[in-house]
Formats: sequence, structure tokens, C-alpha cells
Amino acid sequence: MALHRIFNFNAGPAVLPLPVLEEIQASFLDYRSSGMSITEISHRSKLFDEVINDAVARAKRLLNLGEDFHVLFIQGGASLQFAMLPMNLLPKDRFADYVNTGTWSTKAIKEAEILKKDIRVVASSKDRDFCYIPKNISFNRDAVYVHLTSNNTIKGTQWANFPDTAGVPIIADMSSDILSRRLDMKKFGLIYAGAQKNIGPAGVCMVIIRDDLLKQIPEGLPSMLDYRTYATSNSLYNTPPCFTIYTIQLVLKWLEETVGGLDAMEKINRQKARLLYDFIDAGEFYRGTADKDSRSFMNVTFRLPSEELEKKFIAEATENGLGGLKGHRSVGGCRASIYNAMPTEGVAALVDFMKHFEQKNA
Amino acid sequence: MALHRIFNFNAGPAVLPLPVLEEIQASFLDYRSSGMSITEISHRSKLFDEVINDAVARAKRLLNLGEDFHVLFIQGGASLQFAMLPMNLLPKDRFADYVNTGTWSTKAIKEAEILKKDIRVVASSKDRDFCYIPKNISFNRDAVYVHLTSNNTIKGTQWANFPDTAGVPIIADMSSDILSRRLDMKKFGLIYAGAQKNIGPAGVCMVIIRDDLLKQIPEGLPSMLDYRTYATSNSLYNTPPCFTIYTIQLVLKWLEETVGGLDAMEKINRQKARLLYDFIDAGEFYRGTADKDSRSFMNVTFRLPSEELEKKFIAEATENGLGGLKGHRSVGGCRASIYNAMPTEGVAALVDFMKHFEQKNA
Repeated sequence: MALHRIFNFNAGPAVLPLPVLEEIQASFLDYRSSGMSITEISHRSKLFDEVINDAVARAKRLLNLGEDFHVLFIQGGASLQFAMLPMNLLPKDRFADYVNTGTWSTKAIKEAEILKKDIRVVASSKDRDFCYIPKNISFNRDAVYVHLTSNNTIKGTQWANFPDTAGVPIIADMSSDILSRRLDMKKFGLIYAGAQKNIGPAGVCMVIIRDDLLKQIPEGLPSMLDYRTYATSNSLYNTPPCFTIYTIQLVLKWLEETVGGLDAMEKINRQKARLLYDFIDAGEFYRGTADKDSRSFMNVTFRLPSEELEKKFIAEATENGLGGLKGHRSVGGCRASIYNAMPTEGVAALVDFMKHFEQKNA
Repeated sequence: MALHRIFNFNAGPAVLPLPVLEEIQASFLDYRSSGMSITEISHRSKLFDEVINDAVARAKRLLNLGEDFHVLFIQGGASLQFAMLPMNLLPKDRFADYVNTGTWSTKAIKEAEILKKDIRVVASSKDRDFCYIPKNISFNRDAVYVHLTSNNTIKGTQWANFPDTAGVPIIADMSSDILSRRLDMKKFGLIYAGAQKNIGPAGVCMVIIRDDLLKQIPEGLPSMLDYRTYATSNSLYNTPPCFTIYTIQLVLKWLEETVGGLDAMEKINRQKARLLYDFIDAGEFYRGTADKDSRSFMNVTFRLPSEELEKKFIAEATENGLGGLKGHRSVGGCRASIYNAMPTEGVAALVDFMKHFEQKNA
């Protein structure tokens, strides 16, 4: 029987590279001749050491990280990081700058406020429902850090370039565009990303932290909420989410060895996005919701002439093997998430379907 | 080619039921005709709702939980619970009783102390390296809760019966014996268990909390550290560790439908433990390390006449398809973890090997 697979445009959990899934499946009952599943091996074993060390090494090579960066795996998703960041890095007598570009930035701000931290929202695109990335922001030179969300999964916007913050380290939530493009790491003090969009299944957050930030962490934090616990134990202080880290390792291997690294990945990602945006812009039937200079190449948000047509579009697309095109429940409309693992053929198939749907329904 | 599987005595991550692993493998590229892997489906989908609702319903049926209990899935392992418990449930002007029966109890105490909470260690078995469970403990009637570790994975001890605390709710870390036996839930206010021993892969902690405890949680906690966030969202406030929860669902289904529930499971577990302890006690070569009345039926810890023999024993056992028999790195010796998913044949094979090893080396 032929394998049944759809083109999966889900925003996250999202599509994973098929060769990765096939490798997991093939070895699932007997990982590397151990006679055990990867889900059954000890996190203190040589086998798992190789997994986590390889995942860290590949992340460092792909992002060209210097010796001053640590790659950590922490449970709880980006949502726990919203609290861990100010707990670890924002002392009581200091403040941090936050840029608000949508739902996730807003949540990051909310969690810092719950902790009664002094944060300053230096820019926001709330005035136009977060359809753009603010420009010409005046950052505070004495802020401890600048927090921003590099890609806004829900609103379909993305920072094309990261701002000059005059040396204040940027802390970026990159959950939905981590490892999709090259980065100038000199600007960043910390990057975090829930795995379930670009690098693996749900269940772990990758945190990349610069050494000097680790040194500023106050005493007295619970062990599991202190970045140093993870940095000093190679994320093995307690049992880590082994299967998720293993899958990340395989995705990073695919990214390095099959795709050919971040330059190649970025080129493919930009091609996929151009294919879709060019088609949307060529007619009147579909309408992109983000300002053109703020568009995301990971999450393409668009509307049809009516909500009825959107409902019909999503239903018929699903019947045609194009899944997950419904916009986030908070905004409606349509969204095609075209992360690293979405092949160009998937985007081409979507564009083809959109053409036919327009012809029948315009 | 015949499937290569060993008998896996790892303490955690640990053996999982083979039918569960086979079901995951078979559907790994196409979960329930969705054309997606279980690792790729949305946590907001009908498919995943069915997974998490079924997991919760089965846990409630297996433990015979009343309407007043909530079953939550929280990331970070039992180690994060060590901090979340006092953050949520121990107000500044009150105190809690803790019983110290080993490494994990000690860590639970340490995390409460980091948070500067008032805790009273009412009993400890540290005087004899935690080889027994304390008896005749004087609990404080005005304690907010009594914390204990129901099974001590490292030291091989287990509470045979839970103490009378005069109505003060027991909070129990059951990471290594959850769902291995029936419980009288009237005694418990909260039970928590890292999944990676008896119920699934690493990456989630099951928390069972009584409704009245939820009502005592103070305002001002970060969302991801507040039990109410999980209780009001069915553990779907943010993206949960979907694959881990899915595997738990399948393990609980196996426990209900194949094993036949907790009475049947407990009977099998006691038979397996008896097989091993009876053999150990019959001779002089092997020596159990826990007091007989405090022995665990999940983790059987034992020594050989010398460390050299232990090393040889573990190496030869591994060669014979009996893995994971090394004691915890902090205590040495040998340990056979015989959780729910370890079949009786595995224990019989171990006893058989132990006999032969003794004959050759005594």
C-alpha cells in the first residue's frame, strides 16, 4: 500500500522531514542494536550522550556559535521562558526593553509583569492589529536586555533585520523561525525556541545563552528554573525529554547533511515564500494580511473575500491533501506555515490549488 | 530477521510494553489516516483532544478517582514539582511535614528550602543510608501537607502502607511506582510522577491534584508554574509534549485492557518481586540492601560479595540480554528495576542467570 502523507501546513506541532520520521520508525523497537527503543534507553547511557552531544554540536555548527554560547534543552516551552528570562536575568533595580509584535510578545510581557519586574514597552504594532514590525525604535542604553519575537506565528510578521541596540543584548523568541536563516550572533544574548515548529516535536525548548549572561544570575532560584543548572550539566541535571532531543538531533543532521546548512535552507525558504506571496499579490482574490516589508517567510497569513469562502477553501484544501491552513483561532482567516521541513512541492501544490479555487469561486 | 530485544532493567527511562511500541511504530508516518505523524499533528486538533481526554479518563478509571481530582500533564519532571509544590501550596505563615527516605526526598526538601519555606523533617532514614521506611512517625496536625516519596528508586525501598496523618493531605512523589498498585485516594491531596518509569517516555510529569488544594493557590505565580493554568485548560494552555502524552495513553490502555487493571497489575508485580527476593534470600551470595519490611517491589537493590564480582555480573548479564542492572551511580551495587512493563519471563531469566553466575563464581 502506498504511504498516505499530506502536505501539512500546521503552525506547530508541524511537519517534520520525512527521512527523519522514517529513521525513527525503522529503529523504534531496537535503537542502534541496543535491543531497546530510543524511548527506553537511559539518559545516563553512552548512547544518549552521543545523541545530546551531537544535537548540541550540530546546533553550534549550524549557527556558527562561538565558545561563549551554551545550547540548553529545557522543558515547558517558550511559555516557561517568558517567566524564566526575567527571573534569571532582570534584577530588581534594573529594567528591560520589550517590543510588542503580537500574541507571544504580549504573553512574554505579561509574565514579566506577574513577577513585578520593571519592563518598558519601547515599541508596539498593536495599533494596527500587529500587522507590521515597528521601525526606528528608541532603545534604552541602560536596559539589561531587549526582548523581541523574531517571527510572529499568528500574525504572519517577521523581523527582516534585527535592530541596532547599541550593545544591549537582544533576547529573542525564535520559536517559529529558529534555524531558518543565518544570524549575526553578536547581537544576541539569548535565543529560545519551542521545538515544535522548525526543529522537532513538542516537548522541549532550545535555549542558546551567552556565557556572560549566565554569570549575572542571582542565587536563590529553584534548580529547575536556573539556567546554570542546565549549563553545568549539559541539560542532564534530571531526566531530559530524550525522544524529543533525539528527534531534534536527526532534524539538525538532515539540515546539515541533506539540505546543506543554513545558507541553503534560507534560500529554499525564501523561494517557497516568494512563490506563495507572488501568487497572492498577482490577483485580488487573496489578500495578504501583513505589511509587505514585515512579511514572514515562515507563516503566510491571508484572507479570502468572505469568511464563507475561507471556510470552503480550508475544507476543500483538506480534501485535496493540504492540511492545517486554518488561521489561528484568535484571528481567523487562512495561514500556510511553510517551515524548513515543508518541501517546495508542497507550496507549489498549494499555489496550484489556490488558482483552481479562485477560478471556481471568484 | 528476528526482532532483537533485551530484558531492560533500567531504572528510568525504562522498558515500555512491546505492544505499545509496536503500535507507535506501525502508525508513525500516518497517524489514524491523517497523513501525518503523531509528532506532527496540532495539539488543538480533534485527534489530539481524543488522545489527551482518553489518557485522563483512563488514569481516572484505573485509580478510581472521584470528580474532585484533576489529572494534569506538566513538563519539567518531578524535579520541577519539588519547587512547584511549595510555591503553590505552602503559604508563608504555614509549614509542611516532610519525610526523608532518600535522594529524591532530599531534593524535594532542598527545593522547598531554596524558596525559604517553613518545612519540618518529621522522620528520616538517613541514619542507615536510607535502607528502610521510618515507622511510628509523629506528624503535625497543623501541617499544610505531608510530603513523602512512595518508592525510592535508588535505595530500593517503598512504603508498604501509607501512614495515618490525621486528615492532613499526603503529597506523594510516585515517580517510580505510579499505577503499580491500588491506592486509597482519601489519604492524598496530590500525587505526582515523572512518566519515564511506569507510564511512558521521559518528558512529562503526571500530577493528580484534589480540587480543594487548587483553591488554596495564591495569586501572582507565573502561568506555567501555577497548577490552575493546567487544570482550567486540560493541560493545553500551551503546546504540551504531545508524543509523550500519546505514549502514556497507549500504556494506560494496555494496563486497562491487556493487563486488566491495577488489581491484576499489582498481583503480577508482587509475583515478580517475590521471585527475585526469594531467590536472593535463599542463599548467601546475593544480599538485598533494603530492610525486608521496607523492600520495593519496583526496584530490587542487591550486592554481590565484592565490587569486582558486581562488575563482572553486570557485564556478563548485559552479554546475556539482561540490561540496566547497574546500581545508581551514587550508591553502586546492582539494581533490577521491574516496573509494570517488565514481563515475568524477564525476571525469571534474571533469576536463572543469577543462579548460573553464582555457581560459577561462588
